[in-house]
Amino acid sequence: MNSAKRKNLSKVGNPPGELIYTGKLEPSNAIINVFSYDQHSYNLNENVDLDLIKTLDKNQIHWIDFENVSDSNQLKAIGEIFDIHKLTLEDIINVNQRTKIEFYDSYTFLVIKLISDSSEKLEFRQLSIIIQGNIMISFSEEKNFATNLLKTQLKTNAGDIRKKDVGYLTFSLMDIVVDSYLSKLNNYISHTEEIDEKITEEIEEEHFIKIKKIKQEILRFRRFVFPLKDILFQIQKKEKGFVNESNEVYFIDLYDHTIRINESIDLLRENLNNLTEIYLSIVSNRLNEIMRILTIISTIFIPLTFIAGIYGMNFENMPELHWKFGYFLILGIMATIAVIMIIIFKKKKWF
Amino acid sequence: MNSAKRKNLSKVGNPPGELIYTGKLEPSNAIINVFSYDQHSYNLNENVDLDLIKTLDKNQIHWIDFENVSDSNQLKAIGEIFDIHKLTLEDIINVNQRTKIEFYDSYTFLVIKLISDSSEKLEFRQLSIIIQGNIMISFSEEKNFATNLLKTQLKTNAGDIRKKDVGYLTFSLMDIVVDSYLSKLNNYISHTEEIDEKITEEIEEEHFIKIKKIKQEILRFRRFVFPLKDILFQIQKKEKGFVNESNEVYFIDLYDHTIRINESIDLLRENLNNLTEIYLSIVSNRLNEIMRILTIISTIFIPLTFIAGIYGMNFENMPELHWKFGYFLILGIMATIAVIMIIIFKKKKWF
Amino acid sequence: MNSAKRKNLSKVGNPPGELIYTGKLEPSNAIINVFSYDQHSYNLNENVDLDLIKTLDKNQIHWIDFENVSDSNQLKAIGEIFDIHKLTLEDIINVNQRTKIEFYDSYTFLVIKLISDSSEKLEFRQLSIIIQGNIMISFSEEKNFATNLLKTQLKTNAGDIRKKDVGYLTFSLMDIVVDSYLSKLNNYISHTEEIDEKITEEIEEEHFIKIKKIKQEILRFRRFVFPLKDILFQIQKKEKGFVNESNEVYFIDLYDHTIRINESIDLLRENLNNLTEIYLSIVSNRLNEIMRILTIISTIFIPLTFIAGIYGMNFENMPELHWKFGYFLILGIMATIAVIMIIIFKKKKWF
Amino acid sequence: MNSAKRKNLSKVGNPPGELIYTGKLEPSNAIINVFSYDQHSYNLNENVDLDLIKTLDKNQIHWIDFENVSDSNQLKAIGEIFDIHKLTLEDIINVNQRTKIEFYDSYTFLVIKLISDSSEKLEFRQLSIIIQGNIMISFSEEKNFATNLLKTQLKTNAGDIRKKDVGYLTFSLMDIVVDSYLSKLNNYISHTEEIDEKITEEIEEEHFIKIKKIKQEILRFRRFVFPLKDILFQIQKKEKGFVNESNEVYFIDLYDHTIRINESIDLLRENLNNLTEIYLSIVSNRLNEIMRILTIISTIFIPLTFIAGIYGMNFENMPELHWKFGYFLILGIMATIAVIMIIIFKKKKWF
Amino acid sequence: MNSAKRKNLSKVGNPPGELIYTGKLEPSNAIINVFSYDQHSYNLNENVDLDLIKTLDKNQIHWIDFENVSDSNQLKAIGEIFDIHKLTLEDIINVNQRTKIEFYDSYTFLVIKLISDSSEKLEFRQLSIIIQGNIMISFSEEKNFATNLLKTQLKTNAGDIRKKDVGYLTFSLMDIVVDSYLSKLNNYISHTEEIDEKITEEIEEEHFIKIKKIKQEILRFRRFVFPLKDILFQIQKKEKGFVNESNEVYFIDLYDHTIRINESIDLLRENLNNLTEIYLSIVSNRLNEIMRILTIISTIFIPLTFIAGIYGMNFENMPELHWKFGYFLILGIMATIAVIMIIIFKKKKWF
Ligand SMILES: [Mg+2]
Ligand SMILES: [Mg+2]
Ligand SMILES: [Mg+2]
Ligand SMILES: [Mg+2]
Ligand SMILES: [Mg+2]
Ligand SMILES: [Mg+2]
Ligand SMILES: [Mg+2]
Ligand SMILES: [Mg+2]
Ligand SMILES: [Mg+2]
Ligand SMILES: [Mg+2]
Ligand SMILES: [Mg+2]
Ligand SMILES: [Mg+2]
Ligand SMILES: [Mg+2]
Ligand SMILES: [Mg+2]
Ligand SMILES: [Mg+2]
Ligand SMILES: [Mg+2]
Ligand SMILES: [Mg+2]
Ligand SMILES: [Mg+2]
Ligand SMILES: [Mg+2]
Ligand SMILES: [Mg+2]
Ligand SMILES: [Mg+2]
Ligand SMILES: [Mg+2]
Ligand SMILES: [Mg+2]
Ligand SMILES: [Mg+2]
Ligand SMILES: [Mg+2]
Ligand SMILES: [Mg+2]
Ligand SMILES: [Mg+2]
Ligand SMILES: [Mg+2]
Ligand SMILES: [Mg+2]
Ligand SMILES: [Mg+2]
Ligand SMILES: [Mg+2]
Repeated sequence: MNSAKRKNLSKVGNPPGELIYTGKLEPSNAIINVFSYDQHSYNLNENVDLDLIKTLDKNQIHWIDFENVSDSNQLKAIGEIFDIHKLTLEDIINVNQRTKIEFYDSYTFLVIKLISDSSEKLEFRQLSIIIQGNIMISFSEEKNFATNLLKTQLKTNAGDIRKKDVGYLTFSLMDIVVDSYLSKLNNYISHTEEIDEKITEEIEEEHFIKIKKIKQEILRFRRFVFPLKDILFQIQKKEKGFVNESNEVYFIDLYDHTIRINESIDLLRENLNNLTEIYLSIVSNRLNEIMRILTIISTIFIPLTFIAGIYGMNFENMPELHWKFGYFLILGIMATIAVIMIIIFKKKKWF
Repeated sequence: MNSAKRKNLSKVGNPPGELIYTGKLEPSNAIINVFSYDQHSYNLNENVDLDLIKTLDKNQIHWIDFENVSDSNQLKAIGEIFDIHKLTLEDIINVNQRTKIEFYDSYTFLVIKLISDSSEKLEFRQLSIIIQGNIMISFSEEKNFATNLLKTQLKTNAGDIRKKDVGYLTFSLMDIVVDSYLSKLNNYISHTEEIDEKITEEIEEEHFIKIKKIKQEILRFRRFVFPLKDILFQIQKKEKGFVNESNEVYFIDLYDHTIRINESIDLLRENLNNLTEIYLSIVSNRLNEIMRILTIISTIFIPLTFIAGIYGMNFENMPELHWKFGYFLILGIMATIAVIMIIIFKKKKWF
Repeated sequence: MNSAKRKNLSKVGNPPGELIYTGKLEPSNAIINVFSYDQHSYNLNENVDLDLIKTLDKNQIHWIDFENVSDSNQLKAIGEIFDIHKLTLEDIINVNQRTKIEFYDSYTFLVIKLISDSSEKLEFRQLSIIIQGNIMISFSEEKNFATNLLKTQLKTNAGDIRKKDVGYLTFSLMDIVVDSYLSKLNNYISHTEEIDEKITEEIEEEHFIKIKKIKQEILRFRRFVFPLKDILFQIQKKEKGFVNESNEVYFIDLYDHTIRINESIDLLRENLNNLTEIYLSIVSNRLNEIMRILTIISTIFIPLTFIAGIYGMNFENMPELHWKFGYFLILGIMATIAVIMIIIFKKKKWF
Repeated sequence: MNSAKRKNLSKVGNPPGELIYTGKLEPSNAIINVFSYDQHSYNLNENVDLDLIKTLDKNQIHWIDFENVSDSNQLKAIGEIFDIHKLTLEDIINVNQRTKIEFYDSYTFLVIKLISDSSEKLEFRQLSIIIQGNIMISFSEEKNFATNLLKTQLKTNAGDIRKKDVGYLTFSLMDIVVDSYLSKLNNYISHTEEIDEKITEEIEEEHFIKIKKIKQEILRFRRFVFPLKDILFQIQKKEKGFVNESNEVYFIDLYDHTIRINESIDLLRENLNNLTEIYLSIVSNRLNEIMRILTIISTIFIPLTFIAGIYGMNFENMPELHWKFGYFLILGIMATIAVIMIIIFKKKKWF
Repeated sequence: MNSAKRKNLSKVGNPPGELIYTGKLEPSNAIINVFSYDQHSYNLNENVDLDLIKTLDKNQIHWIDFENVSDSNQLKAIGEIFDIHKLTLEDIINVNQRTKIEFYDSYTFLVIKLISDSSEKLEFRQLSIIIQGNIMISFSEEKNFATNLLKTQLKTNAGDIRKKDVGYLTFSLMDIVVDSYLSKLNNYISHTEEIDEKITEEIEEEHFIKIKKIKQEILRFRRFVFPLKDILFQIQKKEKGFVNESNEVYFIDLYDHTIRINESIDLLRENLNNLTEIYLSIVSNRLNEIMRILTIISTIFIPLTFIAGIYGMNFENMPELHWKFGYFLILGIMATIAVIMIIIFKKKKWF
């Protein structure tokens, strides 16, 4: 994260609107794909030149899929074509944005986060979406599952998507992302359930570390999911937005799912806290048991060893040593002490 | 939960409105029962064909009891008869919904959760309700106590239910569910009171685990009960809903009960937290007591044993060994040390 | 609580409005007293017949004191006289209600909780109040301090109560209850202060248990006191309620007191949490001290005992044993080791 | 606090408006001072008779300083002169009120709390203020810094106070109190910073107790300061109140200071919680260190002592005892074991 | 902080509007720089006399950079020129203000906090800003990075700043400050990540102290950053403020960044809490491990040492001593006991 950090630092004092990529990927050239369709026909142009975009048929619906936002030149060029504000372009290339929606006069701007499938650890990639008239433009940091799946839906006309409008197209992309959140969350839940089952059997520090790591990831995850609820609420309430009456119900459904995800995250956090307390209590009980054993053994044998020590002394005048049954008497006394100790411990329910 | 999880995962990228059962039960064929009544007569048709439903008398009140929502074909068929949106049908068969209410133009859609009586562990089954005109349709995952009890109420005309309208019918079904929540909650409360009484007497790890398990169940429980308060508030406030003036008071009563349940849950959680702290404190005190005993015994006998060790050495020239009363002198010194130690411990109030 | 619990359970599936007593007292016959007054005269009829109630003088103010709500027949009878809804009657006899107020067309219904003076443990008895025109009806589970004190106020015309209206009468009864809360709370506060003073002197598990028991009671207490604030706010704001301009100021005063009680409860909870942490810290320090002593003694004497053990061995060829001052040399070495150890511990500030 | 408590208890059942002093001071006779001024002249009458008050010049501004509210007769008398409601008088003499403001038709009533400078421990004295037309009346439990400082300001015409109105007079008194809060808070903050510096150096139980005592005082303090924010907000928003346009800015400033105090209190609480955790962690580390030393010493010497014990046995037939270098061999073995142990501990980074 | 504290204390009873510097820096003479510009030209006058300010060209935009607010005379003088209220001047020189905005009739007053770059520890310096017509006046405690960077932006016309209005000028200054917050926050985040990586490897008290110190700084930091969100919201909503339509989008962007900072702070706090729990758990596990080793060694060797002690006694009549293989028998018994102990420990999974 060092390079990202340094970029950030060097931005202090810069004027707004500078197009500097702040993500973790290697910068590479933009790839632009255009999917155009109406009820009757559709057409996918991959890796197109920007000039094509200037001549799009206004009666069709178009999805412009802009890959690799780190290419600031192409980003600037497309920004000029659609008259996008430089602050919006900055938010597209500075991929540290919050999940958010902004309504401008000529377009709507939406930022959501994709769970990266190219990284082992939990990492997020920014997916920026601009809706302007019949056109949806998506900006992504790299090739990803979400735009891939949307392409498949369009090709197969899944759910009659090609018969619907640009609002439904946006819904479909968001739905894919929300579904992936739900799927990720279910992973965390089953992972937690596994730890829950193991934790009372074998007590290991690694369980605890895992609980805490899940909690940390959940917290990061929550940060990007939580605002979606408000965003979907705003989308529905927005007059003259891209949601008309016929697809309103789909956004309500999506809204509903984000609430569910948020609730599940909260429940999971509570459960992780619960597991933490269980773990710590078991550790504490284990210590108690260890100390009990140590104390029982020590308390019985230390006094006995002392008595043996007494009669191991080499004084000339020690009358007991010369008694005929002195040895056996002392053994008897030792046994008596041991038995009394054991009875006391039994009474204290120490074993 | 593996199969459910996999279903969930495979849904990423699917278009909305797909009818896939996500519950834990084995899929089976739908059973449809129809209870038709007015003030003068009533009629129960069990296991009817869907065609019957198309010819229901509009002057009567009808309750259609749809069992086994996993039967997606029948579900789709009934959906077509009543013109139910595919997203609503999806919510009926995807039984992971939150407790919620949705008002559509032609029907009201309600999701509540039943505490399963077919499962040992705490598990919830989804009960979906649609109210359209004089008809209430209930969709359940399996035979259950709630629809059974409602059937009994209708047969016995308990509370003059057959003289009232479809709003009261809905109230009656919800009342049964809320009553069952109250009963479950009382179980948790008395269970907690039992642990409370035992916990200061015998300290056992299993108490702690039980406290935590109750807390986990309470948290899951709370999730499905908490939204009911808002739902019942919405039902009352909704103009042109299924609540008219004469049965408004029943929904207010129900609203009141859900508030009570929520308050009791919060109180119970606080008590469980309290019990957790008591348990941990007792464990800690127990450890203290153990260590105190170990320290008393060790601190008295270790120095004495050392002295005995001194005079157990085999040096040729050890004058004390030849003193006449050396042995008794040393015994006296040892006794003095022991008494001083005991006095110190007494002063520190160690026993 | 077993019988109460069972009643509750058996209610699943019952229609609303059933008059089953759910309190902890033995059911007994209702006693009905009527106190009638105006500015000029007053009259107390004890243990009256219900018929009398039907003929009350409409120009006077009447307080009907209904004792022993477990008597469902008399309750039903009085309900019919005043046209009280069956759900209200159910709430009167099912004494598990929350503190609440409900405004009906023909009457206002109020539920508050009395701290039982017939029970050793903290227990609450429900006091239900109905105000209808000039009549206030109070329903109590048993004879209690609140209605007794109100009777005394009326007899002695304390605060000119007989010159005021039914709103002031209601205020007077609520004031008595709120004053009793304040008094109970002060008990808890002084109890907590006592523990606070003792806790740093003598550390005993029983202090901790007491802290936790107070906290549990406070939580139960809070549940019944907290809603009063909103209720008193509603009473003031209600147009056409029983509060007219001249007694509004009294309800504002009461409102003020309930806020004070709620604030005190919150402060008390914080203090109890604080005491919990102090207690646990002292326990932990005590353990530290014990372990320090054990470690000092063990660390000094275990090595010395080992040295003594060496020269207690019976090998034939041990040259040191034959040195003239071997014994004294070894004693000197032992003393040196002990002194070094003590210096180290001093440096670590262990004593 | 016993006498105060008993007074409180005996109030259960009393009608409202009874003038019983509930503070901790000895009751004493009221002293009434009147400070009258306008832009041109001023006049201070100390220890005046109540009759004077009835003849105050309506064109001047008057501050009536009523000391020792425990004098219920004088309080009642002044209440009659200014037509103050008996509940207000009760709130003045019952000094357990919350910080609050109440707007009556003919006067405004304000309760704030003074930090007592006559008591060692943190104690609060109630300062009640009534503003009626051009007159401000302050009621205090005893002579105090706030009214003293206000007197000085008036005498020296500090900030041109005598050229301003009764609203500014009220502001000045509140400003003195709020400044004293800020000063007290700064004491707590520097006290906490001192503990913060010491806590990592020398670990002592007394630090912990001090942290907790500060927290307890802060909580009590907060209770009286927190409501001021809302009160000052109400004062500003109140039409026809005592705040006119020219002094509004002063109340905004005061509002600002109370927000700052509240924020500082919250930050201080967080820091105290942080210090608590640091303290407990250090205690826990200390225990770890002690146990590590004990374990190192014990683990090395206990096995060696055992070996020495073996060869201290008096069996006739022990061949090793007769070996020429048996003693030296055993010493070597012992040294080897000790070295191995030390290496193991080094590897575990125990020292 | 002693001198600052004393100043504060001495303010109790002072009238409002006194110009006393409360910061930590040495008082020094004010330096006033004026940057005047319009679309065509610009001019920087450094260290100007106050008289110049009275003759500024009303058609240009001016930034007056007032350094060293501790110079109360110059502050008073500039206050008179621009007709600034004495309470505003007090807030400029009393640098303990909250982050806040206040809208007056003739000017807007803004307080934000700079992270000091002249101090090693986290310290804040107050930056007060007044906007009046075309003029922005900034008041700072000392030379600082923010005004330096703004000067550079103006000189280089970065982002066409000289073509924009005074609102954009204000935005630019705030943007620099917010960027510096983001940069500071990133420092804390990477610092925390470093601790996170180290904490499970080597457990050291200093990690814990560092976590807590970061948390303390974060809390102080948060206090100054948190209100910015509301302030930026107010700036946008304010009619007739200094934000016109063309620069509104910049303030929205800034608003967005402050939300991001606040969210990151909250996430960081949660992570620090998480790390605290991990640390404490590792410490606790470490103690467990130590105790386990101590108990294993003690429990095995203490009984064996006791047996050796028995046969080290010097009784005359101890038959075992004379058995031919008594020594070897006893060695065998000891070995057997040791083996049994080890097996028991293995079963308990102690090693
Ligand atoms: Mg910038
Ligand atoms: Mg931005
Ligand atoms: Mg990231
Ligand atoms: Mg979906
Ligand atoms: Mg759905
Ligand atoms: Mg839906
Ligand atoms: Mg939590
Ligand atoms: Mg919790
Ligand atoms: Mg989908
Ligand atoms: Mg479930
Ligand atoms: Mg019910
Ligand atoms: Mg009810
Ligand atoms: Mg009711
Ligand atoms: Mg708690
Ligand atoms: Mg029922
Ligand atoms: Mg109760
Ligand atoms: Mg009262
Ligand atoms: Mg009062
Ligand atoms: Mg009052
Ligand atoms: Mg707390
Ligand atoms: Mg009273
Ligand atoms: Mg007090
Ligand atoms: Mg002030
Ligand atoms: Mg101000
Ligand atoms: Mg905290
Ligand atoms: Mg002042
Ligand atoms: Mg100020
Ligand atoms: Mg500072
Ligand atoms: Mg910026
Ligand atoms: Mg932006
Ligand atoms: Mg936390």
